[in-house]
Amino acid sequence: MMRNLTMMTDLYQLTMMYGYFEQRMDRQLAVFDLFYRDASTIEYAIVAGLEQAIEYIEGLEFTAEDIVYLRSLGLFSEGFLDYLSMFKFTGEVMAMPEGTVVFPGEPIVRVCAPIIEAQLIETTLLNIMNHQTLIATKASRVAHAAMGDSVLEFGLRRAQGPDAAIYGARAAIIGGCDATSNVMTGEMFGIPVRGTHAHSWVMSFPDELAAFRAYARTFPDNCMLLVDTYDTLKSGVPHAIKVFDELAARGYKPVGIRLDSGDLAYLSREARRMMDAAGYTDAIICASGDLDEELIRDLKSQGARVDIWGVGTRLITSQDCPALGGVYKLSAKEVDGVLRPKMKVSDNPLKVTNPGVKVVYRIYDNASGMAIADLIALQDEVFDQRQPLTIFDPIDTWKQMTLTGYTMRRLLQPVIVDGKVAYHRPELLEIQANCKRELATFWEQYKRLRNPHVYKVDLSDGLWSLKQSMLKRRGQAPED
Amino acid sequence: MMRNLTMMTDLYQLTMMYGYFEQRMDRQLAVFDLFYRDASTIEYAIVAGLEQAIEYIEGLEFTAEDIVYLRSLGLFSEGFLDYLSMFKFTGEVMAMPEGTVVFPGEPIVRVCAPIIEAQLIETTLLNIMNHQTLIATKASRVAHAAMGDSVLEFGLRRAQGPDAAIYGARAAIIGGCDATSNVMTGEMFGIPVRGTHAHSWVMSFPDELAAFRAYARTFPDNCMLLVDTYDTLKSGVPHAIKVFDELAARGYKPVGIRLDSGDLAYLSREARRMMDAAGYTDAIICASGDLDEELIRDLKSQGARVDIWGVGTRLITSQDCPALGGVYKLSAKEVDGVLRPKMKVSDNPLKVTNPGVKVVYRIYDNASGMAIADLIALQDEVFDQRQPLTIFDPIDTWKQMTLTGYTMRRLLQPVIVDGKVAYHRPELLEIQANCKRELATFWEQYKRLRNPHVYKVDLSDGLWSLKQSMLKRRGQAPED
Repeated sequence: MMRNLTMMTDLYQLTMMYGYFEQRMDRQLAVFDLFYRDASTIEYAIVAGLEQAIEYIEGLEFTAEDIVYLRSLGLFSEGFLDYLSMFKFTGEVMAMPEGTVVFPGEPIVRVCAPIIEAQLIETTLLNIMNHQTLIATKASRVAHAAMGDSVLEFGLRRAQGPDAAIYGARAAIIGGCDATSNVMTGEMFGIPVRGTHAHSWVMSFPDELAAFRAYARTFPDNCMLLVDTYDTLKSGVPHAIKVFDELAARGYKPVGIRLDSGDLAYLSREARRMMDAAGYTDAIICASGDLDEELIRDLKSQGARVDIWGVGTRLITSQDCPALGGVYKLSAKEVDGVLRPKMKVSDNPLKVTNPGVKVVYRIYDNASGMAIADLIALQDEVFDQRQPLTIFDPIDTWKQMTLTGYTMRRLLQPVIVDGKVAYHRPELLEIQANCKRELATFWEQYKRLRNPHVYKVDLSDGLWSLKQSMLKRRGQAPED
Repeated sequence: MMRNLTMMTDLYQLTMMYGYFEQRMDRQLAVFDLFYRDASTIEYAIVAGLEQAIEYIEGLEFTAEDIVYLRSLGLFSEGFLDYLSMFKFTGEVMAMPEGTVVFPGEPIVRVCAPIIEAQLIETTLLNIMNHQTLIATKASRVAHAAMGDSVLEFGLRRAQGPDAAIYGARAAIIGGCDATSNVMTGEMFGIPVRGTHAHSWVMSFPDELAAFRAYARTFPDNCMLLVDTYDTLKSGVPHAIKVFDELAARGYKPVGIRLDSGDLAYLSREARRMMDAAGYTDAIICASGDLDEELIRDLKSQGARVDIWGVGTRLITSQDCPALGGVYKLSAKEVDGVLRPKMKVSDNPLKVTNPGVKVVYRIYDNASGMAIADLIALQDEVFDQRQPLTIFDPIDTWKQMTLTGYTMRRLLQPVIVDGKVAYHRPELLEIQANCKRELATFWEQYKRLRNPHVYKVDLSDGLWSLKQSMLKRRGQAPED
């Protein structure tokens, strides 16, 4: 359970809430979309963090100490502080399930609530979803590069604080890692944990062989040895094989070795050859050390003989892109009792938002079962899947495609209704399996690490027309 | 107070602990140094995170549920689980105070404890110190680029999870930020919080002027308006000035405006001109939007008229270098009742460690009061500051310098002695002031954003000789 994070919000959420409260606008409904615009080289992202986001909203409560602190800021009236002391979220949240493949511009979470409530949760909702989605996405890329090899999450010591480690490991599992070194994440989410020994173990003994023998005595049936403390091929691997022989003589089956430095392509090939020659063809090789998806791809193309990849810093911080940049934008607001579409107009077309209460469809080709395109539509638009559907590029509208024999699936699901959680919390490994199944419905060109083919995310007729008419009026709805 | 993070450790710490326990080596003393090797473009770093690291060690406790979970892994004996259930840290921790300026290779934290205890705390100690030191360092660079302008930390929504936001904001204050948008950090650490309103506030009203007027009604004496929702110069600034006039007519003094997009150099100059012409020469301009130290430096060099810089994503994630890469290396170990030096030898000279129980001196020139060099020495070496001191480059040993009229200051202080905390917890703003004072003792060339001059970190005669003799013996101490 996420701890109470109610106070973890930008001060401007509280000043705006106070403003709405004072202007008696606080109960007017507002709809906000949480989405990301783009994430540098990343074409798709993997949704993660929803469970913690829901727990955060469920647990919202200003304590008596919080109220005392807020009073001390000298910004708020007693009436507003009274309101905060009784604050509850009463709105609706729709969201894509964790593990969903998502593309730029698609609402991942849609919040409909009195504006005073919708505003409070913006910052922490973004914090949680941005972080876990970022790491799940990175893990998915790493797992893709590993082409079926096992990937372990090893980044705890380099993560940006405890939560980044704990929930980053959780997200890494969603994205495709098989296990983590982080014992707390293992305990919290029932996922496999892995680890053997460090260089300091070897250095604590008079010599490497003594260290390996001591480790084998303690873990005879789970003996994985780190072979690069002194000299991998001249000392580490020969000593490991010697200890494996001693274990085998006692009837145990050694597990393998870990390489943590040097040229992993060359060292893994040589270590493989030496272990095979000694009869340990089943012994595995785990490699670690500043790995990421690009290095794994290169090492594999250079013939590395690695069975398990331990990935640390560059995964747990998403080093090449350490922030997803998700935003939370107003898309509709109650005016005189009716929800009216809202949009942000910007000179930068990338920053123009999609107005109205929206849903996201994923369209599958019935023949292949593969995803063809996504469609962002207005919630009240009706589609007849027995009829051909013409979709078009929202910028270059002459680029059209007419679909037949397709199935549309709604990606946003209700998770909070009237302030009550309406969400089945899947097991983490169940989310991982869903994610794998979903990724399999995307052609390889969309999953390429560099310059992936752009997946179609189109706007429905209704949404496109609404947006165009509002753009012409600089963001005002036609009826305003 | 940091929550119980005892289980937040790499599994291999527990398997090594079990190994030491089974080999009856667990009570042997070991000394570990926590330091960073280099951090890409960064020459110096600002120590941060110590308070949370100490709280973590103080709070170490395996709960009954933790023991049940660890038993379920099937790796450990009941004797070892019993030991864990009574685990307490009994050792010594020396550390540089938070806010200290530190350089690559210098021990920031030195742990001396029974090896089974020293091993457990490695991962979380690194996690906490790596993270906060990284962000404090980035903040220090941003504050340096702002040249005395106020800097606000605005990164909550893009931080890598809640702790990265909460403790990242704490570290940003240490490094030189004046305030944060994060209300929780403000409450926890008694530091200033800042914030006004977002684009969604403006979009929630029929037009911008109505939105500004409503905000001014709610905060007449704290009126800071975001002017870029529609068109900064044609709409935002003129509307702001109109509302300022209305406020002034009622006897209030308007605070200023915030720019969040566009060419901040041009827009801030124009906005300044318009506000000055309207008589609001005291009204301030706050700028935000993908800022970092390099962009702030460029905007200032292009004549930006910005009083306050709001820095988000790129500060809170340290975007260009999102991990510090601190390590925790064995430097001495008890053998037959005596602490013997240990070192890691690597073909990569950068990865060769400094052996022995060490201290760090900062040497100041008495005439100028400025820092000249740091010296890493063995703890038992004695220095007579009345005598000239010759220091030399540890690689190019012919590069020598003889100092007279100098003062040496020890940077490592005891913070835990015999398992008891011996640490005065300074207020956060006190740490910030210490950091500022210390940075002022370094010449500008060491603080340059790009290609800073390399500050001398030399090894004492005693340490250099020990290291050379051990290198010749591939890491074995002379007496081994």
